[in-house]
Amino acid sequence: MDKLYNWVKERGPICLGLDTALEYIPESIRSRHINKEDQIFAFNRGIIEATKDIVASYKVQIAYYEAEGIQGLMAYKKTLDYIKANKVPVIADIKRGDISKTAQMYAKAHFSGDFEVDAITVNMYMGTDTIEPYYEYLKKGKGIFVLLKTSNPRSGDIQNIKTQTGEFVYHEIMKLLDKKGKELLGQSHYSPIGAVVGCTHPEDGVAIREYMKNTFFLIPGYGAQGGKPQDVVKYLINGNGGIINSSRGLILAYKKETWKGLKFDEAARKATIEMKDTILQQLKLITQG
Amino acid sequence: MDKLYNWVKERGPICLGLDTALEYIPESIRSRHINKEDQIFAFNRGIIEATKDIVASYKVQIAYYEAEGIQGLMAYKKTLDYIKANKVPVIADIKRGDISKTAQMYAKAHFSGDFEVDAITVNMYMGTDTIEPYYEYLKKGKGIFVLLKTSNPRSGDIQNIKTQTGEFVYHEIMKLLDKKGKELLGQSHYSPIGAVVGCTHPEDGVAIREYMKNTFFLIPGYGAQGGKPQDVVKYLINGNGGIINSSRGLILAYKKETWKGLKFDEAARKATIEMKDTILQQLKLITQG
Repeated sequence: MDKLYNWVKERGPICLGLDTALEYIPESIRSRHINKEDQIFAFNRGIIEATKDIVASYKVQIAYYEAEGIQGLMAYKKTLDYIKANKVPVIADIKRGDISKTAQMYAKAHFSGDFEVDAITVNMYMGTDTIEPYYEYLKKGKGIFVLLKTSNPRSGDIQNIKTQTGEFVYHEIMKLLDKKGKELLGQSHYSPIGAVVGCTHPEDGVAIREYMKNTFFLIPGYGAQGGKPQDVVKYLINGNGGIINSSRGLILAYKKETWKGLKFDEAARKATIEMKDTILQQLKLITQG
Repeated sequence: MDKLYNWVKERGPICLGLDTALEYIPESIRSRHINKEDQIFAFNRGIIEATKDIVASYKVQIAYYEAEGIQGLMAYKKTLDYIKANKVPVIADIKRGDISKTAQMYAKAHFSGDFEVDAITVNMYMGTDTIEPYYEYLKKGKGIFVLLKTSNPRSGDIQNIKTQTGEFVYHEIMKLLDKKGKELLGQSHYSPIGAVVGCTHPEDGVAIREYMKNTFFLIPGYGAQGGKPQDVVKYLINGNGGIINSSRGLILAYKKETWKGLKFDEAARKATIEMKDTILQQLKLITQG
C-alpha cells in the first residue's frame, strides 16, 4: 500500500482497468492476429504503452480472461508480465474467498508463480479465517483489497441489511478489517489490508472513509457505472489513500464520439488524462473550499 | 439439479472433491511424469477411474489448479474433459461473485468453452444482480450453488450476524434464493439454484433444510473438516436433495493407517465406499426410527 501511496502522490489516483472482452478489440488488431491470446495481449500492450506514465496502477479483471479459457489465461499472464516489466503496480481483480486451506492455494496462485501480482481483491462473506492465509504475504509487501461496499446497483441486498445494532452488515466487516489492519500497520500509514468501496453510493463511502483512516481504498464504479467526480474525491484523504478505477470508460474511449478517429490506444490516453484532470480539478475545489 | 437428483437416487449422495495439491500426489506418479500438468492429471484420472461407478458427482476446486498457473489450469481442463467423457456430473467449485457485466464473463467461462461444467458455486455477497447473468444458462440445464452457510470455523462472522428482525444474515439470502428458485422451478422438483450448506453447523443446516424444500444442497465439511454422518443425513430429504462432499478424506485415504499398503486409487475407492455405506446406514436408522 505504501507503493501505491507513492505512485498516487506522483501520478494522481487513476487505476486503469483492463477488462478486455474480445468484442472490445478493434478490427486493426483482429486482422493482424489470428488467435485470441495474441489479440487480447496486443490490445492490452497498446493500452499499457499509451498510459503507463500517467496511471498509478492497473487492475486486471480475471473473469474476462477466464472467459476465453486457456488462451485467455495465457493472455492474462502475458499482460501481468508486461505491466511488471514496466514496474507499474498491478492489482488482480479476482474477488476470491474460500476456506483457509483453499485460500492458501489462491494466495499461492496470485502472490507467486505465473499469475503473481502486487495486490488482489478478496471476498470475506465466508468469515475472517478466509483472509488469514494472505497475512504472511502481506508481511512481504503484498496487499489485499477486501470487498466492503461494492459499486453495483443491488450491492445493498446483503451489504446494507440492518443489523440488531441498527448498523449495516458492511459496518461489521469494516470494524473487523479496521482492527486487523491496524495490527498489521507497522511503520506505514496505510495497512496492507485495503477495502473495495464503490463510488456509486457516496453516503456509504463517506461514512466508511470517516471510520477508516488507515485503509487504502480501491474505488470502482467511476464513469460507465455512474460514479461522479464530485463524489469520488470525498473517498480520498488529501488526494491520496485510494485509487479510482475506470475500465470500459478508458479502454473503450475509441468508440466514443469525443475521441472519434483516434486509434484505440491514443483515445485511451486522452480519456485517462481527461479523467485525471477532472478529478484533480475537483480535489483543488474542495481543498480551496 | 434433476440430473443430480437422478444420480443420487442411483448411486447415493457422495460427491468426491478433487482438491489436488501437488504434495498430495504419490511418488509412484511423480516419478513417471516430469511436469506438473501430467502429474496432476494422472492422479485425478486414477481417482476418477476408481470411483466413477460409485459417486453422484465430482467437485473440482479450481484454487488448487490456479495455484500451479497455466500448467495447473491445463490439468484442470483435462480433468473436466475426462469426467465429462465418463458422463458423471461435474461441479466447479469456483465461488465467483462480481458485478453483472463481470458475472456474464464468469458464466461464459464456466458454462461454455474450455472449462465447461454442469454446475458452479457462487458467492452473492455483492447482491442479487450478481447472480442474474447465470439464469439464461440455468434454463439450458446448468446449475448454480449459492454460498449460504459455509463449513469453515468462522463462517458465522458475517453469515450469522443478527439482523434487526432477530434472524441471521444468511436467512435473508435463504429467502431471496428460495423465492427466485421457485420462480425458476418449471416441471422439476428441485430448482436450478442450489445452496452450499456446510454440515459442520447442524443447527443452522437443519433450519435451512426446514425452510428450503425445493433447493438442492451441496454439503461440504464432511470428514476432514469435522462433519458427522448423524448430522449430515438431516440435510437430505428421503436420502436425496443434496450431495455430500469429501475431498481430502477420500483422495488422501492412501496416507491413512486404515488403508496402508493400498495404491492411492484403491484407497480412494475403499474410503468412498465406506463413506457411502456409513451415510446410507445412518439414513436407514432415521427412516426406521
